[in-house]
Amino acid sequence: MTRPTQERALRTREALLRAGAEVFDECGYAGAGINRILERAKVTAGALYFHFKSKEGLARAVMSAQPAVIEPRLNSRGLQRLVDITLVWAHELQVNALLRAGVRLSVEQGSFGLRDASSYLGWKEIMAECLHTAVDEDELLPTTRPDDIAEFLVGACTGVQLYSQLISDRADLPRRTVVMWRMLLPGIARPETIARIDLDVTRSEAR
Amino acid sequence: MTRPTQERALRTREALLRAGAEVFDECGYAGAGINRILERAKVTAGALYFHFKSKEGLARAVMSAQPAVIEPRLNSRGLQRLVDITLVWAHELQVNALLRAGVRLSVEQGSFGLRDASSYLGWKEIMAECLHTAVDEDELLPTTRPDDIAEFLVGACTGVQLYSQLISDRADLPRRTVVMWRMLLPGIARPETIARIDLDVTRSEAR
Repeated sequence: MTRPTQERALRTREALLRAGAEVFDECGYAGAGINRILERAKVTAGALYFHFKSKEGLARAVMSAQPAVIEPRLNSRGLQRLVDITLVWAHELQVNALLRAGVRLSVEQGSFGLRDASSYLGWKEIMAECLHTAVDEDELLPTTRPDDIAEFLVGACTGVQLYSQLISDRADLPRRTVVMWRMLLPGIARPETIARIDLDVTRSEAR
Repeated sequence: MTRPTQERALRTREALLRAGAEVFDECGYAGAGINRILERAKVTAGALYFHFKSKEGLARAVMSAQPAVIEPRLNSRGLQRLVDITLVWAHELQVNALLRAGVRLSVEQGSFGLRDASSYLGWKEIMAECLHTAVDEDELLPTTRPDDIAEFLVGACTGVQLYSQLISDRADLPRRTVVMWRMLLPGIARPETIARIDLDVTRSEAR
C-alpha cells in the first residue's frame, strides 16, 4: 500500500474500533447492530470485514484495546506504576467508551458464547511486569509472588468495578480503588515502600 | 391453603428454581428457553407465572438464592466465618448449579437489560455482619471499616471467580481464594487473629 492508503486504512480501523466501542458500551454485544456501528463510523461493511472479519472480531479487538488507553498515561515504575494503572483505569472508565466497552464485553462475554481470557491475561502480564520491577527494587515482602498478586488484582479490579457500576454508575470507583490498596499494601509491600506510595486519587486526572 | 397444598406449592417452587438454575447455568439468560425450564421442572407455565411471574422473576430469585446455599454449611463466627463463607463458596461453585447460575446471572445481567444490585448487597450484609462480630471480639486492626472490607470482598470474589472460570473452569478457585486471604489478612486483622485463622482449603469440603 502507498503511504496515504495506509494512513486511510489506519483511520478507518480506528473509526470502526471507536464506533464499535460506543455501541457495545451502550447496547452490549447482542444489542449492537452492525448497521449502527457502520453508520457511526461512516464506513462500509466491506471495511468492517477487511479489518475485523466480523462483529465478534471487532468485539475481540475492543476487549484487547484496553491497555492502550492506560499505558501512555503512566510515567512511574514498580509498585507505584501498578497503583497508577488502577487509578488511571478507575478514572478513565468514567470518561472513555473504548475502555468501558472493553470491560463490559470481557465481563459479559459468556452471554454471547465467547470464552476469551486474552484481555485478562494481557492485564496480568502488564501488572506482573510492574511487580517484577518492584521485586528487583526490593519493594515487596519477600514472601510474595508477583504472578499471584497480578492475577488477584486483575480479578479484584474487574469485580470491584462491577460492584461500583451497580451501586454508583462507577462514580465511587476511584475511592474504592484507593480503599483496595490501603487494605492490600500491608500484605504485599515492605513498610518503607508503603510509606512512599502515593494513593492520591487525583494522580490519575493530572495525566 | 391446606398443609398438603402448601407443601406441594413449595415443592413446585423449589423444582422451578432448581430447573431454572440448571438451564441458566448451561445457556445463560438469553439462551434459557421457558419450555426447557418447564420440561425439566415437570411443571406448567401457570406454575411459573404463579411463583415467579416471568423468566426475569425466576432469574432474580436464582440470583437471590445464593446465600441459602452457603449459610447452612457454616458453624464458625467472626473473621473465621467470613473466611469460611468464601472457602465454601469457592468449593460449592464447582458442584452447585444454583450457586453457579446465581453468579452467572449477576455478572451477565447487563446483557439482558437488568441492573439489580440486590444479590451483591445481600452478600455485603452477610459479610459485614461477620465483620461486626469480628470488631466486637477485637479481631481486626483498629483502622479498618467493616463495610469497606465487606464491599471490597464481594467485588473481589466476584472478579476472582470470573478470572478462575476463564483460566481453569474454576478448578483453581479454592487455591485463589486462599491466596487472596494471605494477601488481605495483614491489612485488616491483628497479628494474633491471623495466627489462629484457619485457611485450610479442605474446611469447605468437610461441611
